[in-house]
Amino acid sequence: MKLNHMLSTKDFSRKQIDSILSLAEKFEPVALREKRCNILDGKILSLLFFEPSTRTKMSFETAMLRLGGKVIDMGSIETSSVMKGESLADTVRVVSSYADSIVLRHPKEGAAFMASEFSTVPIINAGDGAGHHPTQTLLDLHTIRRESKLDGLTITLAGDLKYGRTVHSLCYALSHYNARINLASPPELVLPDRIIQDLKNRGIKVTKFDTLENAVKDSDVLYMTRIQRERFPDPAEYNKVSKEMRVTLKLLENCKPDMKVMHPLPRVDEIEPEVDKTPHACYFKQAFYGIPVRMAVLVMAMEEKYGKVL
Amino acid sequence: MKLNHMLSTKDFSRKQIDSILSLAEKFEPVALREKRCNILDGKILSLLFFEPSTRTKMSFETAMLRLGGKVIDMGSIETSSVMKGESLADTVRVVSSYADSIVLRHPKEGAAFMASEFSTVPIINAGDGAGHHPTQTLLDLHTIRRESKLDGLTITLAGDLKYGRTVHSLCYALSHYNARINLASPPELVLPDRIIQDLKNRGIKVTKFDTLENAVKDSDVLYMTRIQRERFPDPAEYNKVSKEMRVTLKLLENCKPDMKVMHPLPRVDEIEPEVDKTPHACYFKQAFYGIPVRMAVLVMAMEEKYGKVL
Amino acid sequence: MKLNHMLSTKDFSRKQIDSILSLAEKFEPVALREKRCNILDGKILSLLFFEPSTRTKMSFETAMLRLGGKVIDMGSIETSSVMKGESLADTVRVVSSYADSIVLRHPKEGAAFMASEFSTVPIINAGDGAGHHPTQTLLDLHTIRRESKLDGLTITLAGDLKYGRTVHSLCYALSHYNARINLASPPELVLPDRIIQDLKNRGIKVTKFDTLENAVKDSDVLYMTRIQRERFPDPAEYNKVSKEMRVTLKLLENCKPDMKVMHPLPRVDEIEPEVDKTPHACYFKQAFYGIPVRMAVLVMAMEEKYGKVL
Repeated sequence: MKLNHMLSTKDFSRKQIDSILSLAEKFEPVALREKRCNILDGKILSLLFFEPSTRTKMSFETAMLRLGGKVIDMGSIETSSVMKGESLADTVRVVSSYADSIVLRHPKEGAAFMASEFSTVPIINAGDGAGHHPTQTLLDLHTIRRESKLDGLTITLAGDLKYGRTVHSLCYALSHYNARINLASPPELVLPDRIIQDLKNRGIKVTKFDTLENAVKDSDVLYMTRIQRERFPDPAEYNKVSKEMRVTLKLLENCKPDMKVMHPLPRVDEIEPEVDKTPHACYFKQAFYGIPVRMAVLVMAMEEKYGKVL
Repeated sequence: MKLNHMLSTKDFSRKQIDSILSLAEKFEPVALREKRCNILDGKILSLLFFEPSTRTKMSFETAMLRLGGKVIDMGSIETSSVMKGESLADTVRVVSSYADSIVLRHPKEGAAFMASEFSTVPIINAGDGAGHHPTQTLLDLHTIRRESKLDGLTITLAGDLKYGRTVHSLCYALSHYNARINLASPPELVLPDRIIQDLKNRGIKVTKFDTLENAVKDSDVLYMTRIQRERFPDPAEYNKVSKEMRVTLKLLENCKPDMKVMHPLPRVDEIEPEVDKTPHACYFKQAFYGIPVRMAVLVMAMEEKYGKVL
Repeated sequence: MKLNHMLSTKDFSRKQIDSILSLAEKFEPVALREKRCNILDGKILSLLFFEPSTRTKMSFETAMLRLGGKVIDMGSIETSSVMKGESLADTVRVVSSYADSIVLRHPKEGAAFMASEFSTVPIINAGDGAGHHPTQTLLDLHTIRRESKLDGLTITLAGDLKYGRTVHSLCYALSHYNARINLASPPELVLPDRIIQDLKNRGIKVTKFDTLENAVKDSDVLYMTRIQRERFPDPAEYNKVSKEMRVTLKLLENCKPDMKVMHPLPRVDEIEPEVDKTPHACYFKQAFYGIPVRMAVLVMAMEEKYGKVL
């Protein structure tokens, strides 16, 4: 039996993405507490988080509970059998005999795929190291779709484009929508060449900019990411870069009046607090969209195995 | 829109306190599992505990679940995004788009008030450092009301009266009820002068006693608190003090036969175990009263925003 | 009032064990998600785990949730009032005024019995150090009953038979069923003499074997346990032992075709991964049986106090 795992959006067709986002939109009134829904009544979701991720964990929990389902949580790895040397395969085999679906977060790339080989219930990848985090990508797309536009989009990706798993996955997904992609990052943290090449092969226009200011001028969306201090051996260099790569009121003066600023959060110092009050600020809405998107993913994951639930 | 935050009892009128305690009394049969109630069905409470507090956490969870609601828990801060440097404001902004109310415990005074500025759902303060812990104060008052009497009460406050946030808040609340307050503490840990002055200005009779024995003689309630070893640089001094400030069977011989002994728990060595079996012991009942009181607070917090639920 | 605590299986009669296992069998379709059951609707189970045990915790949670009940979790001890020096007695007294039943795991032998002296609700022992872990024993028996046979069973116990609480409890329970017990362990980790004597006094045939290979020849079940590296001061000795005490495809060639291999999990290296795919492998099914068995235990614990729920 084939299970509806959600491991990566990389090989998703535009049609597949659109159908998830459409379903997510239907769940928005439930996420906003305007409507009740018990579609997952009787189902149990198990959270296996092998590294901390408060926001992702809480939003999966919220999505599951608001659809009438229940949640069991492995807890932190410090307090789990993992400490006794159990393999991920064994943990997954056992837990999949308890729960109806598993949300897995793991520091090792490929962990979710491996887990899917041993699980008897759908695995939802909630981040596997440098690998994938498909529900983040989907909620980013959903935010763009709901707050800006997906077709004909011009988006600036800014900050750490080298290590940022989030922006990599987003790039590939956006290639279905003929987006124009502007890049703004410190020289140490540019988008890897192989990704740029992939995007160009898919017919996407990718442009590198020297400054954030130049990049955002014609953008519909500015997608900001966190630059980690640890990437810079020299603190002075970090300070310089983090100053240049910052969303300020001044920066917003020269952008489109309806440009939306997104950020996967947590943010540290990348966005001036004053920006929060402008209509550009879209990152808290983006975090909220994690709920309806994860509702859609949970329902799609569990519907093939347990019959049409919608 | 004004939200029904519960940040402090300090500015509560007697009428406000009485209405919460009356509601709490109505919920007692539910807390005692004699009655069922689903008044908070469909609501989600989020627990944000930035420092550990087992009892408070478990009693909020119990109160919410027994009213038909659901709970999501951030978990311990070691495993949360806080580690990535996220501000409390951002955490609260995001979580308030997930849940219907937030219970916040935080080591910094003023944290709950600050959170209320950013939250779109009611904040319930479950302790903010040296600041407030309103549901503790309310359950203390409820215990006195149910097991002794609030009007015309004589109460002895004993132990650490200097750092004990619990007794400070209780003092202010009792000033609505013309209580007579007896104080018994080691000289190092006396009630701060500004609080004594405040109480006197409100017409409350406050009396300092040299010994616990003299203080309790005419008391209806003895409110005992924990003296922390760390407050005393000299271990010998601590041992002396903790011996004098101890509730023993002998001490109880000279008090009113219906005097109640209260303690916010956890206790360490302040109460002789033999006292547990006497009718004076009221601290476990007091812990239980946390359930109906928190039920009342949860229902009041969520009713303005979501319509009259009662 | 007598409460239905579940502290140990040691003094259980065969009739008592059989009635729990029969009830567990009735709950199997619920555990398999083929049937719904809300028998524990309105009940709250509290988890007090003073040491980590992911599998036990998650299976109790799953059992409770699938029967319509709810769960509150103390969380890890690092984040609990225990750190403030509270006694187990006080914690249990308070929590038993919140919840309808308590699952307790504690590193100290006798902790569950002690807790039962102070609790006003049923205590379920989920392991107390070198003491008992009755639901593990019951799920082991249930697995044998469902996948092999209890009456006339020949079972090989292998691995660490000295410190393994699990095998000790299983031995005593099997003595009700006229089992023949084969022992295979390194000389450092043999079954204690007093247990062997107890078993012989109950008319059980116990045989020691030099090698695992000889022990399993006529066995219906091979019960494998983990040998902890820390038991051996000399790493070379550990390596030798762990190689000899290993379930391999080769070993299985000379056993009964329907012999079942059991293991309480987590396993580390005691079972060759290739064994997983053989019909002998029974350890994941065994972990699953923890759900229906714990369902039965939860229902039996709560039925006397709260009226006949079945």
